[in-house]
Parts: sequence; C-alpha cells; structure tokens
Amino acid sequence: MTENKSILSVPALLERVETIFINAGCSRQQAAAVARVIVAGERDGCKSHGIYRIEGCLRTIKAGKVVPDAVPVLEVDDSAIVRVDAKSGFANAAHEVGIPALAERAKELGLAALVINGCTHFSALWPEVEAATEHGLAVIAMCPSYATVAPAGGSEPLLGTNPLAFGWPRNGNSPYVFDFATSVAARGEIELHRRAGKELPEGWALDGDGNPTTSPEQALAGAMLPFGGHKGSAISTMIELLAGTMLGDLTSPEVLDYLGTTTLSPHHGELIIAFDPARFSGQRRGNPLDRAEVLFEAIAGQGARLPSQRRFNARAKSMSDGIELTAAEMEQLERLRQMGLGSVD
Amino acid sequence: MTENKSILSVPALLERVETIFINAGCSRQQAAAVARVIVAGERDGCKSHGIYRIEGCLRTIKAGKVVPDAVPVLEVDDSAIVRVDAKSGFANAAHEVGIPALAERAKELGLAALVINGCTHFSALWPEVEAATEHGLAVIAMCPSYATVAPAGGSEPLLGTNPLAFGWPRNGNSPYVFDFATSVAARGEIELHRRAGKELPEGWALDGDGNPTTSPEQALAGAMLPFGGHKGSAISTMIELLAGTMLGDLTSPEVLDYLGTTTLSPHHGELIIAFDPARFSGQRRGNPLDRAEVLFEAIAGQGARLPSQRRFNARAKSMSDGIELTAAEMEQLERLRQMGLGSVD
Repeated sequence: MTENKSILSVPALLERVETIFINAGCSRQQAAAVARVIVAGERDGCKSHGIYRIEGCLRTIKAGKVVPDAVPVLEVDDSAIVRVDAKSGFANAAHEVGIPALAERAKELGLAALVINGCTHFSALWPEVEAATEHGLAVIAMCPSYATVAPAGGSEPLLGTNPLAFGWPRNGNSPYVFDFATSVAARGEIELHRRAGKELPEGWALDGDGNPTTSPEQALAGAMLPFGGHKGSAISTMIELLAGTMLGDLTSPEVLDYLGTTTLSPHHGELIIAFDPARFSGQRRGNPLDRAEVLFEAIAGQGARLPSQRRFNARAKSMSDGIELTAAEMEQLERLRQMGLGSVD
Repeated sequence: MTENKSILSVPALLERVETIFINAGCSRQQAAAVARVIVAGERDGCKSHGIYRIEGCLRTIKAGKVVPDAVPVLEVDDSAIVRVDAKSGFANAAHEVGIPALAERAKELGLAALVINGCTHFSALWPEVEAATEHGLAVIAMCPSYATVAPAGGSEPLLGTNPLAFGWPRNGNSPYVFDFATSVAARGEIELHRRAGKELPEGWALDGDGNPTTSPEQALAGAMLPFGGHKGSAISTMIELLAGTMLGDLTSPEVLDYLGTTTLSPHHGELIIAFDPARFSGQRRGNPLDRAEVLFEAIAGQGARLPSQRRFNARAKSMSDGIELTAAEMEQLERLRQMGLGSVD
C-alpha cells in the first residue's frame, strides 16, 4: 500500500495548510497560526486534531462565526492578568500574541494569567500549554465548549466537554503534559461508535429523557456524562465559572445558543495560568525541575505511562521521517486549496 | 435516646476543643486555629473532620512531628506570591495569617497565590477555600498527602490522596465549594469497609502485588487507585508537582518517608490560588457573580445537587440548634481535656 502514501516534511505540510486558509480569506497571521496547530496535531499522530479539522474551520468561516482576518489585541497593565482580545478570530493567533507576554509577566510576578476573549477554538489545549513550558513555566489551561454534558445527578446537556490541560517543563526533555476532556468520552468517540454500529460502554451518556443509555444515537440526542462522576462534574463546573463567567465570556450553554449547532467551532474565552517554579520554590530543597524528575522516574519505574508520551514519540518520528498522508488525504488537501470555502456546505 | 445526647453551642464546643489543645502544649494561636477547623467540621456534619480528629493531632504532637507553639511567619514581597512559613506548626494557624494577605494581593494584582510551607495538615481544604471566598475571590487549593495511591497503569503507592478544592463567592448565599480526594475513595472509607467486614467496590484498590482487589485488608497493604482513571491520576500528579515540588516542599512519597507511618498527620506544603472575578471579567458581559447564578440555577433546576449543599444545610441547623454530641463523645472530650497528651499512645 506504500505507493498510495505520500510523505511530506513538516514545513511542506505547513505551507499547504496555510495556503488553504489564505485561499479561504484568512489573513497571513490567522492562517499561519491555525496551520501550525493543525500540522502539530498531524505531526504528533493526533489525527482527530489534524487536517481532519480543516473543513470544520472553513465551515465556521463560511457561516460568519469567525473573523478570518481578525487582528488580536494584546492588553498588558500592571496587574497579573495579560489579556488578548481575539476580535472573534481563531484562538491560535491570539495565543501566539499572548503567550510571550504571559511568560514575561509570570517571570516578573512569579504567577500570571492569560485571558483570551472572543476566540473561535477548535484545537487541543496542549499547543499553548507546551508553548508556555518552553519559557520554563508550569501552566494550567482550560476553556468551556458547547452544552453537551449533563452535570452529575442531572438529566440534560448543560456543561461542555470542557478540556483541562497542564504542563510542566523538563530540562532536556519534552514537557510533562496532559490535556483531556472532562466528559467521559469526546463527542467524536460517540460518533465513531455510531458509524461502527457499536454500543457505548455504560456510564458514557444519557438519552433524551435523562436515562442511562448505551445507544450512540440516543446519546447524541441526549447528553454525555462527566468523567469521574460528581468529581469530574465539579471540575467541569469550575471551568464554566473560571473560563466562562469569570472572563466575561460565554459559558457552554451560551456558546450553543450563539452558534445554534455543534457542527461549527465554538466561540468563547480561555484561561491560561502560568507559574514560575523557580520563584515559587524560593530555593527550598533544591531545583524543583530536578526534584520533579524523581517523581517522573517513580511513575515510569512502575510501568505507568506519562501522559503525552505517545504523542512525543510520534513527533520524533515525524520530525525525522516526515508525515505520512494517504492518497485520499492528499486529494482532500488539494481540493480544499483549489475550492476554498466552495468546498464546504 | 435523647437523654444520652448533649447539645453544645458552637462557641461552647470551640472553648472545649481549644482547651484540649492548650493543655496538650499548644500556643493559644495554634490551639484556636485548630479548634476552629475541628468545630467547623463537627458543625457542618463532617464527622470525619470533626472531634474525631483530635486524637490524631495529639498523637502527632506527642511524636514530635508538629511544633505546637510554632509562630507562622508571613512573607510578602512585590510578587504575586504570598508565603507563610508554618514553622512546622499546624496548617490552620498559617492559613489565618496568610488568607488576608492573599486577599489583599489578589485584589491588587487580580491574581495571587498563597504558599504554605512546612505545615502539619489534618483538615479538609474547604475551611481555607471558604475564607478566601469571603473576600469575594474565586479560589483553587491543593496539597499532597502520603504515598498511598498508585498512578493509573502502575502497581505501587506513590501519589497521595491529594485533595483538590475550589470556591466561588455568591452574593447573599453560601459559596459554591467543592473539596475532594483525587483517589476514588478516602483511606478512611476502606478502613470502614474492613471494620464492617465488607468487600470494596471494584476499581478502588490494588493488592500488594499490584493486582485489583476488593479485599479491604489487601487494599490497605497495597495501593488505592485515583478517581477517573488516567485523568484523575494526571490531576493527582499535577498536585504533587505544583503543591509539592514547585513549592520547595515534600511530595507524598517524601512525606511518608519523613513520618514513617500514615497514623500521624502529614507534613507538607499547600498551594492556594486566588482570582478576583471583577478584575478578570474586565466589566465584559455584566457582573460575573450574577452570571454564575444562571449556571447554578440551571444545575439545580435539573435536580443535580451543588457540592457542599448538605454541609451548608447541616451548618444552618447547628448554628440555630447547636451541635449534638453523644455521651461517649462528651466523655472523650473530657478525657482529652484532663489527660492531654497522656490520653494518646
């Protein structure tokens, strides 16, 4: 089957994806930032956040729910809060403006937060988390989504799949990074079960009447459930409060009201909190990054995998060998490049 | 059975508990702070964090693992980090010194963190979380514990039960507060199953060989499991990093090494992050506290309970009717008061 595969270098795929977005009306700043994140997903073996996402982005542009040439505006004052108004553009350009300013403020004060307002968000959180760790910072990121998840003990969609991500810098190594939905499963996993005609595991979802279901169809018409029962539900609620309400931005039910569909990328805010471990440790008990390695060794030493390890392994392979795409994927990229917004409904 | 019960007002119980700790060698500052938290547990119907905890505290004093007359030292500089060195005293006195300073800094900068170093910690996190919400702040708190929990995919105790707590202020109402262990169950729940001769639910624990077990005895000799599988395990690891390593304080395996037992209260640090919602919202979309009420109403409106609601209901009853103690509990308080450290091994 090798003859049906193409190998593209990371820069070559970047150039193709960026061109698609420029042809769809994006500014160079927006197109480049979105392309970097989509190619990072493909490079890291996260197909669900790779080129598969391009059509959704184009649909969101076509629906007028994202401003493709928005210029994000950075606001820094004497507080610990760095703010970027994304001006209804994609979150990715806003991150690229905001993360360096966040890092500077976190180094000055030991702790700082980046608030992104009014962005369209389709990507994972690990790209911005990793970008912050490259400045030697520990970082927590979170954002709401659409109302598709019932709170524990409830019956109707209210919370989003509200991802939570964390990063810790490691000297001479990829950072410790986790990034997951606070729902039991991603909505896409339920869709995959539906297409495969498979029942869902118990505990994933409720039907339209609020009763437990293992039917993917009924789950899609009902509500997903949070991970970890009432604990995950509480964390998801915290994300609505901190990254929705507190930021003066939309909560997951408000996002769904605004879009009227879950087929477009959601529009909301994002909260990124950065910590300078050197400042926090105050030189007590030695270098905190060195001490963290003792913990990582103890985890790996008993056979438990560090999160993101599979992704970093895929990245290393892509960087040395290039990214492998199927003939269908290459055709899709070419079609999207030529037809732009005409390629989506 | 009513004749065997005593009703004490909150101040009356406070006075009794404070006297016990003074008789056990505590300074008035340490004794008062510890008594306030123990009585708060009893008042809120959290028996597991009420007067039941007194003996453990006295054992920890007797073992020389907490300094009963420590004077916590506040350090404030021009950063966003407020630090209290607990000087090996109880965490509670350190909170009482640190929370007002944290609130002041969070109001100035929009965001600030309180680092507690070198404290003995036996209490829940909600007392300090609630104290911060009284200043109108949103707050996240976390700390390590002892190594009793295996990471997901692992086989041996490494992580602590590492609690995570969150608070959000509500105008004219008790705050939104959650506070839970990141293990599936608290160690005390496994002990209760053992005493009752009951099997554990599946998914709670591993035996000494790292295999799943439903035997409480084997679980106590083995490891507990994190809540929510690899997601809860990742959050627990984050707590080790942020509230252990980053603070220049002990991680859960180091705490266990230091104490050599889980029968004494653990000694470590604590991280409390405070956010000023008014500053974060930047006046966008109205008052963030009012907007949060819409979310709470939607949660309660579908029959899901807000966390801590049962506790606040118990508190209201205790404040109006007093706290009911059994004759055995009254005798225990009297014995502890008279015999001091002589009452524990």
